[in-house]
Parts: sequence; structure tokens; C-alpha cells
Amino acid sequence: MTSAAEAFRPAARVAGQKQDVWSIVNEAAASSPVQPIVNMGQGFFGYNPPQFVIDAAKQSLDRVDCNQYAPTKGRPRLKKALADAYSPFYGRTLNPETEITITTGANEGMLSAFMAFIESGDEVIIFEPFFDQYISNIEMAGGVIKYVPMHPPVKGAIETSSASEWRIDIEELKKAITPKTKMIVLNTPHNPVGKVLSKEELEAIGELCVKNNILILSDEVYDRLYYVPFTRIATLSPELYNLTLTVGSGGKNFYATGWRVGWLIGPEHLIKYVSAAHTRICYSSVSPLQEATAIGFEEADKHGFWDESKKEMQGKVRKFNEIWDELGLPYSDPEGGYFVVVNMEKVKLPDDYVFPPHVAERPRDFKLSWFLIMEVGVAAIPPTEFYTKENAHIAENYLRFAVCKNDDVLEEAKARLRGLKKFIQA
Amino acid sequence: MTSAAEAFRPAARVAGQKQDVWSIVNEAAASSPVQPIVNMGQGFFGYNPPQFVIDAAKQSLDRVDCNQYAPTKGRPRLKKALADAYSPFYGRTLNPETEITITTGANEGMLSAFMAFIESGDEVIIFEPFFDQYISNIEMAGGVIKYVPMHPPVKGAIETSSASEWRIDIEELKKAITPKTKMIVLNTPHNPVGKVLSKEELEAIGELCVKNNILILSDEVYDRLYYVPFTRIATLSPELYNLTLTVGSGGKNFYATGWRVGWLIGPEHLIKYVSAAHTRICYSSVSPLQEATAIGFEEADKHGFWDESKKEMQGKVRKFNEIWDELGLPYSDPEGGYFVVVNMEKVKLPDDYVFPPHVAERPRDFKLSWFLIMEVGVAAIPPTEFYTKENAHIAENYLRFAVCKNDDVLEEAKARLRGLKKFIQA
Repeated sequence: MTSAAEAFRPAARVAGQKQDVWSIVNEAAASSPVQPIVNMGQGFFGYNPPQFVIDAAKQSLDRVDCNQYAPTKGRPRLKKALADAYSPFYGRTLNPETEITITTGANEGMLSAFMAFIESGDEVIIFEPFFDQYISNIEMAGGVIKYVPMHPPVKGAIETSSASEWRIDIEELKKAITPKTKMIVLNTPHNPVGKVLSKEELEAIGELCVKNNILILSDEVYDRLYYVPFTRIATLSPELYNLTLTVGSGGKNFYATGWRVGWLIGPEHLIKYVSAAHTRICYSSVSPLQEATAIGFEEADKHGFWDESKKEMQGKVRKFNEIWDELGLPYSDPEGGYFVVVNMEKVKLPDDYVFPPHVAERPRDFKLSWFLIMEVGVAAIPPTEFYTKENAHIAENYLRFAVCKNDDVLEEAKARLRGLKKFIQA
Repeated sequence: MTSAAEAFRPAARVAGQKQDVWSIVNEAAASSPVQPIVNMGQGFFGYNPPQFVIDAAKQSLDRVDCNQYAPTKGRPRLKKALADAYSPFYGRTLNPETEITITTGANEGMLSAFMAFIESGDEVIIFEPFFDQYISNIEMAGGVIKYVPMHPPVKGAIETSSASEWRIDIEELKKAITPKTKMIVLNTPHNPVGKVLSKEELEAIGELCVKNNILILSDEVYDRLYYVPFTRIATLSPELYNLTLTVGSGGKNFYATGWRVGWLIGPEHLIKYVSAAHTRICYSSVSPLQEATAIGFEEADKHGFWDESKKEMQGKVRKFNEIWDELGLPYSDPEGGYFVVVNMEKVKLPDDYVFPPHVAERPRDFKLSWFLIMEVGVAAIPPTEFYTKENAHIAENYLRFAVCKNDDVLEEAKARLRGLKKFIQA
């Protein structure tokens, strides 16, 4: 007989988790004296998907087949639309039946990839800073994570620089590779630092992966938002294609993070196991919104959507960053995506300022985040949460702002952030 | 350095899977000379959700917040609507914030429950026949499955009887309990046999669980479709509530299996870990269709939907089963849900009939399924797939028909099934 305590004991994989950064920031935002808060924390869009995609979703809801189970690998129309949209980047025709599989958002897509290939003790290399879900997903599959830091711009605390100056040290990467290395996770355009990995960087990483037979999981969910030339590692050579799973997101592409439509593209010998894992995790993914995403891809060019989307987001980044130029706070100018990391070393927090214990015990960026929420009414994410404890110091003066918000919200944020002026040391 | 073969080797959890029953039946259906096939295999609906739910979904798509990430535990309106709808069954007010969590369909909800509580080596008891996804979900969490057979009606091959005559032997269940038993999975109304577990059966099972501190995962996705009194085990006593997670499905409730909106209801000390696991698996679930499901629950009574839904489905069951009475083939008359299992011992397959190897090597029900698809153009599911090899013989003469189809489809199925007459032995 089991005791009651044993019966209720959760599995180690969910036990004793500390509060996540998203709920800390959201709860702080809810308790701020400045209301409503301008929330630039989480990366959801402050506006709707384009009307042609919304209309497609509504039409799908009228169709019986679109309301019932999608095939486990995804609706044929979406796989076809993705093959058509992505084949040009690969310079050959992707097979929609074998080289593409649909998942419940990019998140569950990445979990499916880990579940498909990672066994207990296999090592997975990820760069710091990382998207926090990677960690629990790799660990759920039994993987052991090896961290390689991205190095911030040398003068990051003093002057604004391109996000390209966050650097990967290939020698450090080499040292992280062991006989147990099964996979490496890339993220480009990068969340949170906004770096687009250059062709040269990808070639260097790719060479190591080919040489050591390491699978590549390339998280490219911001793949339509780049402001410098963008390279997809899977397209660099047949050898690299052979090793690479590329992750995409309908939610990020079409401003619908709540739709949970994602996909992986890769060679059949990898994709088939991702599909198998996905089937065991979610069975199938949301059917009518897959159809809407398919129509989105079919019609995007006709509406000039990709160009407009990129231009619009780059405009938001530029406009928002004016406030940092005005305040003299240096930031990493993003090469892609919709996040800006700002260096706040110059912001002096009052010595007698009282932080609640769960903030006080964390690195300085959590205090900066709390302070901005309470004093100026703007929420941003403390990025040390995307580092191991050992390397958290790298980011303790940074905050991450999501600019995928309406222009009036961005203007209000800028107006409020002017209130920081009196706390900035010359 | 890893070899290429090692690099591409899938994890054991997805490797070497045999073809699943759904794709075997679907592929056979596609290759039948009789086209279009009448597909009564998979349990998806042949018609749309009710208009008030479709309208709610369309309206949700116009709202910015409904298109972006839902909270990881689910949209507040859906949790509230579920608390309001289910509190009466519990005789007290459920707390929507702590006793309900939303998942990506019931399937990922059950995986989340296993991931929350099952560690490597923990034992989980399930009854045969079982829903096949249970197996991979439990194994993904590292659980060891202990099977307890449900015994078919004694005269199942000779005469039609109530699905209640599928019996659980409590002594067999007792013997399956060990010090490692962590959880038991119940399913009522039951897929595929259509049994609704009686209050007495649930009390006997519940007593064992309370005595041995075994968690109960009660899969009640067909909870609005019962044709005899329906008891929810979690409502029997506070002790049982304390141990039980109850699984529900918006897809099954509102004819929308492709929407992937499910939930678990249970005490806070269990739900909080299910939420934690769900967050690590899918992050959050599809947002606009959560809102639509919320509105569905809010308005269902006003539209008389639950009564109508039950009456309509029972009508389909009755009408469809006329064909078996006519043919003299005995079936289990379902007490709930939308599946009918029919005993085809009397159907004589021609001695010289040629089955493809992947069918020939499987039990007789696979041959019956293949034969019906090819000869009369009706697809049904062979239920030995829902048994262990050891107990598969119990079901080798049965086929499972899903009746959640339009009336004209059911009539066409009946017309075609008359073609079986010449193969039936008196």
C-alpha cells in the first residue's frame, strides 16, 4: 500500500519549480499603482492577424472537415502551402508528405523533436541566453543540457550597437561537444537579443555538426522578420539539410500566438520520428486554424504581407528605440524579430527602495523590471531568466522589451519611460 | 564523435512502432473498390458544431486577446464556465482558478496528468479494452502498465445485450494492485464498449483506491452522452474527490474533435501539477476556440443543447442498430457514447479470400474490418488493437462502429451492410 503522501507526490519533472518569469512580471504588472500598465513583457501581438487570415479562419469554421480531427501529421493543404512557400529557399521542391509535419505551435514542435531523438543522458547544446521552454522540454526527454554563452557587445553598457555584436565563440562551442552530444539548438532571429546568425557563423557551426554528426534543431519562428540578410542553415548544403530540423510558427508569422499552429521541416528520416512523437503527445493539432494558416501562406504574397510585415515591425523597432537614444541608454539594435534588449547599467535604483523578497533575492534585472513597472508603468522581461546561474551576471543590467504592439501603445511607453530620466546617471 | 547512424537513431519511445489501427483502416478505405466508402471508423463527427458555438468562435476571432496566448492554465472565461457547469454535479462550488485546468484536447490533458504524477517504474492500472493513446502516454512518462480485462457479455456471440454486461471483476482488480500502483485510469461512458460504469462499480473501485491511496484519472469525455444514469466517481465522496482527476473534452461535447480544447477537474493539490506539466508540453492551448467553448457552456442550456444532443445521439444508435437486428448479428447496446461493438462470429469469411500480409497476420477482427471495407464499403475499427496480445482473443469477433454521422450516411451504411447477409451463418 502506498501512503497518502506518496500518492500525491508529483513527478520530479514538475515538482519544486520556482515561479516563472512570466507570472512574476504579470503579477507585478497587476499590482502596479500605474494602471493600465503598458505591457511590453511577453511577446504577444497587440493587434489582430491580417483580415485575410481572419476571414480564412471564419470560413474554415463553416466546413465540417475543418472542425474535426486533422491528420496527425497535419492538414494536407497546410503541408502543401508550406512546401510551396519554403521550397524556393531550399532551391528544390520539398515533399509535403514526408518533409513537413504540423505541430501544436512551435513549442510542442520542439518538444516533439526532443522526444523523437533524445534519450536519457544524451547531451543537447544550447546557447545562452535561451528561450526558457527549451530547458524543461529537453529535460522532459531525459536530455542533459550543455550551455554555451553568447557574449554581449563589449561596449554594451556604454554605447548602442548592432545585435550582431552578440558573439558566439566557436572554440567554446567545440569544447562543449562530447561523444554524447546528440543535438544543438539554434535560434535565429534570436530571442531575446535580436541577432540574426550570419552565414559565416552558421557555416562554422554547421561544419562542426557535420563533422561530429550532431542534429541541428533550428528555431526560426521569427523567420519573416529580418532586417539584415537572413540565412537558413538547412539550405547551406545537402549534408546540413540531412541533419537539420527547422521550426516555424504560424502564430509568429501571422500575429496569432494563441492559435498554436507550428511545423517542422526536415529530411524524411528525421521528420517521421517527430511526427510519431507529436502523435503521442497531442494526437493532432487544431484543425480549422491549420486551414486558415494554409490560406495565409497561399495568399500572403498577393497581399504583399511578408514585405509589409517586415517593414512595419522594423518601423516599430526604430520608433520605439528613439526613447533610448533620447535617454542615453544603450541597446542592441535588433537584426530581426521584435525584441529589444536595453542596457540599464546607468539607471540608479534608489538605495532605500524596497523590493518584495522574491524580487530582492534575484539578480538586478528583476529589480529593474519591478522598478519600471511600479514607477513608470512599463513592463519588460528580466533576461537573466534565460541564463544559467553561472552566467546570469552577463545580463543583469539588461531588460527585454517586446515592440509587437500598436503604435499608440509604443508612444505611451516612450512617454512613460521619459520618467526614468531622473534615475539615470550621466 | 558520434557516428551518423547514432546521430539519426530515434529515441526508443518512437522507434519501431507498428502501423496504427487508424491508418490501417484509413488506407484500406482509400483502396476499396467501393467508393466513396462509408467511414464509421474513427470517432469524428460527420456534422458541424451547433451554430451558436460556431458563431461564438467567429466572434472570438475578431478579438485581439482571443488570438494571442491564452494563460497557460486556460482562459478565465472557460474555467469559469466549466466551474458553473460542473459545480452542480459536485454539490459545491468549484474554484475555477485552482480546481480546473485547460489542456490541448483531452489527449494532451491525460498526458499532462501522467507526466505530472508518473515516475519511471510507477504502475498504472488500465482496463482492457483501452483507448490506444493511453499506452504511449503512460510509457512516455516512464510508467508500467498493469492490465485488467473487462469481460464481454457471456452470450455476446449469440444475443444482443446491454453494454452493462461487460463486467469488471473486482478480485482481478485487487490482484493488480501492488505497492507500486500510483494511478488507475477509468473511462465512462466507455470507448469502445459503450458501458457506463454503475454507481456500485464505481464505489467498489473507489473503495480500493481510497484504501490503497491510488490516484484516479477518470476519462469522461463522453459525459454528456449517457442513456442510463451516469455517475461521476469524483462526486461520490470527499475522499474520492481528493484522489481524482476528471477529464473532459470540448471536442466531444460540441462535435468539434479538431478544436483540441480539453480540461481536467480535480483538487488543487493535483491540478497544480497537471498545469505545470501542460505548461512544459504545450505552453498554452488554442485561445479563440477556448473562448468559443466557454460560450458554448454558457449558452448550452438556453439552447436545450445537452438534452437535444443526448436524444439525437441515442436516436442514431437505435436507428443504426436496426440493421444488426435485421441481420441477426448480436451487439452491445451502448449505455453511453457513440460507439457500437458488434459480434461477427456468425460472419463466415470465404476460405479462399486473400488478405494482404499486414492484415493476414493480425487477429480475425482485422480481417473482418478489411472484408467489410472491400466487399460492402463500410469501414469499422477492429478492437483487438485495444487489448494486449494475451487478451486480444476476447475481441477477435467484434467490430466497432462510430454512429456520430449524418442520418443519410447511417442509412447508406445500413443499406450496404445488408450485403453481409449472404456471409452470415444461421
